Amino acid sequence: METVVTGRNCEVRFGQELPTVFIAERINPTGRKSLAEELKLGKLDIVERDAIEQTNAGAHIIDVNVGAVGVDEVDMLPKAVKKVMEVTDRPICIDSANHKALKAALNVCPYKVLINSVNGEEESLEYMLPIVKESSSAVICLTMDNKGIPNDPGERLEIAKRIVKRAESLGIKREDLVFDPLVMGAATDGNAGRICLDSMRLIVKEFGVSTTGGFSNISFGMPDREFLNVNFIIMGIMAGLCAPITDVLMKSLAPAVKAADFLAGRDAYGMNYISMYRKK
Amino acid sequence: METVVTGRNCEVRFGQELPTVFIAERINPTGRKSLAEELKLGKLDIVERDAIEQTNAGAHIIDVNVGAVGVDEVDMLPKAVKKVMEVTDRPICIDSANHKALKAALNVCPYKVLINSVNGEEESLEYMLPIVKESSSAVICLTMDNKGIPNDPGERLEIAKRIVKRAESLGIKREDLVFDPLVMGAATDGNAGRICLDSMRLIVKEFGVSTTGGFSNISFGMPDREFLNVNFIIMGIMAGLCAPITDVLMKSLAPAVKAADFLAGRDAYGMNYISMYRKK
Repeated sequence: METVVTGRNCEVRFGQELPTVFIAERINPTGRKSLAEELKLGKLDIVERDAIEQTNAGAHIIDVNVGAVGVDEVDMLPKAVKKVMEVTDRPICIDSANHKALKAALNVCPYKVLINSVNGEEESLEYMLPIVKESSSAVICLTMDNKGIPNDPGERLEIAKRIVKRAESLGIKREDLVFDPLVMGAATDGNAGRICLDSMRLIVKEFGVSTTGGFSNISFGMPDREFLNVNFIIMGIMAGLCAPITDVLMKSLAPAVKAADFLAGRDAYGMNYISMYRKK
Repeated sequence: METVVTGRNCEVRFGQELPTVFIAERINPTGRKSLAEELKLGKLDIVERDAIEQTNAGAHIIDVNVGAVGVDEVDMLPKAVKKVMEVTDRPICIDSANHKALKAALNVCPYKVLINSVNGEEESLEYMLPIVKESSSAVICLTMDNKGIPNDPGERLEIAKRIVKRAESLGIKREDLVFDPLVMGAATDGNAGRICLDSMRLIVKEFGVSTTGGFSNISFGMPDREFLNVNFIIMGIMAGLCAPITDVLMKSLAPAVKAADFLAGRDAYGMNYISMYRKK
């Protein structure tokens, strides 16, 4: 099963049998004051720069999130999506909890995007899935519902089952559902990493679907976050991670993921892995 | 469940809830001509140097293997074990397929060792398990039998079940069984890594036992073996790896394993991980 998203002259595929792809996370004002300030003023210089830098660093898909206090998302999200499309041919992940903003952004993007996100809450299923279907998008599915985020991987699987059932009842194909089993910080819960990856493994075993996750969350509050983030992605790949949402500017990311793809059987004869050494 | 082995003034514990420990692999003439040559001549200079270097590099347990064509193992294995005990207080893993040599080595070692190894073949179970019981050792259990190494993780689990049953019928405690689900080269079989770690996960889920494996095997024939070996150990830790047999002289090993232990919930509040940064 392969998930496909498209950009200008560019198609990105990911799935259990394919090399890992990166959803670049930087265009997001959460915790980035300078970007939040710029967006409030209606400016897009950082968005433009981030889109270019992340593309050059090997991003396969560009996440675009402009949600911050004081930002008019309905105005700024489509503008940001347009700006990103101007400077990169990469597919886009439209990341918004604001339905009007999401629809406005979908209207300006002629390609097949990834929508971030739907979850197991009735309200979310009811509102988001028809948008996904109508826009022929793929969608990130969070394994949480109105009761919160269960600690038990089996319960996260149950939420995934509900989402699959509802999506398929609307005619959304399973390959357009990209499951995010929710990465929490390991500093506050030592079991967070294990619970997340166990959930991912269960969901992949049940449905064979593609997966993602905010893999930078694992390291909140810890020193050398890059080191933890990259190692957690490596562990994730063996558990079925296909497309982490991550910081592609981390220099250690791409080589480690090439090694992991080889070790996880996603790189026949290690051709991608070996190519790193041929270039030297 | 915790596996305990001992050396002079030194006890090493490992298990699913504990930080990962390293079984140092270098004292092994396979593929090391200089060591094989020395052992043929009855010399132990490299053995001594390796024991010291590996201890200084953070080895928790020292594997001792002197098996090579032209080496009198029955004579040399106990001598090598004695030499290692002279220069390090670390527990020893006695690694031999030669029963007489194994017994001779056990006779010179007053501590609780790890024996490498028993497997699911009737002959091996019948001969090795009484030695394990009598010497109060722990033992590495390989998930292979007279039919070879199954490709199916479920079949590797079945072999593990047979070994557990036989060992327990002799009164060997489960914590003294350290399972090795067999690491093969990924260059010749892209699924080797996944099969190994899936087997490990099944065995750990069923029995809660400690695990090991020759984690350097994964990278045979590939460039930058250290990079692959360390990343595969990281993946293994999330699958339940407790005590990889590995090259502790790899500089990238210890920091990556500290990160992995934290991510896998084996390092409460990340105290071991954070200590790396305090020292800087």
